[in-house]
Amino acid sequence: PAYRYEKDPSAIYRQSFSIVRDEADLSCLPEELHPIAVRLIHACGMTDLPTELAWSDTVLDAANDAFRNKAPVLCDVEMVAHGIIRSRLPAGTDVVCTLNDKRVRELAKHLGTTRSAAAVELWTDRLEGAVVAVGNAPTTLFHLLETIASGGAKPALVLGFPVGFVGAAESKDALIENPFGLPFLALRGRRGGSAMAAAAVNALAAGLPEES
Amino acid sequence: PAYRYEKDPSAIYRQSFSIVRDEADLSCLPEELHPIAVRLIHACGMTDLPTELAWSDTVLDAANDAFRNKAPVLCDVEMVAHGIIRSRLPAGTDVVCTLNDKRVRELAKHLGTTRSAAAVELWTDRLEGAVVAVGNAPTTLFHLLETIASGGAKPALVLGFPVGFVGAAESKDALIENPFGLPFLALRGRRGGSAMAAAAVNALAAGLPEES
Repeated sequence: PAYRYEKDPSAIYRQSFSIVRDEADLSCLPEELHPIAVRLIHACGMTDLPTELAWSDTVLDAANDAFRNKAPVLCDVEMVAHGIIRSRLPAGTDVVCTLNDKRVRELAKHLGTTRSAAAVELWTDRLEGAVVAVGNAPTTLFHLLETIASGGAKPALVLGFPVGFVGAAESKDALIENPFGLPFLALRGRRGGSAMAAAAVNALAAGLPEES
Repeated sequence: PAYRYEKDPSAIYRQSFSIVRDEADLSCLPEELHPIAVRLIHACGMTDLPTELAWSDTVLDAANDAFRNKAPVLCDVEMVAHGIIRSRLPAGTDVVCTLNDKRVRELAKHLGTTRSAAAVELWTDRLEGAVVAVGNAPTTLFHLLETIASGGAKPALVLGFPVGFVGAAESKDALIENPFGLPFLALRGRRGGSAMAAAAVNALAAGLPEES
């Protein structure tokens, strides 16, 4: 068979974003979040995300400041870290994932929790003012909120996209209702994932024009 | 606030799979694909996947043979490679992603296509009998089908999970209708992604009991 398909990367992007703009109803979102919503939809192929998005009014300013200050991006899993387009971040910005650090397994056993939660303990030095992107584990998000509740360092913002059936929706609700004034962007419910968390970082990283 | 949530990893898995089994209608799938469908659903938080799944009757045998032979796993993007649980694969199995190879950018320019398609050209030596996992780019899948159509090496099976609005559904339809007798598992439509492609590899890697 002869296969006919679009091979020009910029045409693919252009057509994709145009389809998303045509089909997705973004009217529930403030104008300045539209480009970010478009990128999130683009990352997952689903146009019905907007009504499930939740955000704090402070999230865009917080993101701009954080990226300008070369705040590190702390990720719960390597998949998120590898979905981030490094060239979008200011030179010298670190992308960090501690999940596979050798100390995590012992730490998880010691704390009686998951490795994903224990990995947050190893963020401590870099957590103040950081960009946190959670694309997989509800326990990462819960444990982060616990450390903040007990007086620990506060990140600049949290991108909350844990996925799944046990704790994902609840962890994002807890983020959305956080009493710490913590800026956030999150997708309510069971959906989420590394691709969306990475897309959120990529979209926020430069106040990007969406066709870039 | 005090956060209450499940912290025991095996309880989280058990509860997750139990919710999926309760809520998802797997009756459209052959029994032997149920564990794989459960893992795919678990990876994305969406119980309505089964009716969109497509597979060849040969895919399970092909996967078992391939993994037993330590066939390499060829991934379109690093996110897929990093979602694969290496301990599930037989020792000595390679997980390969050529997208960031230095030669890819030139090759893409030369071929007039995307980097994702050009990266397939660098699989050549390892493609025969390999496990191919596509979690992002429709052009990877189309280009692979083209190389097979023109007499190139044939992988043992293809896991087709490109995501998005331009070519994703079409590339998976082309895989599903492939006239090469190529074993496959794929998700029709726009949905897909690295997490699903990796989950498919993880699920197939050992004919796994789903609670492992």
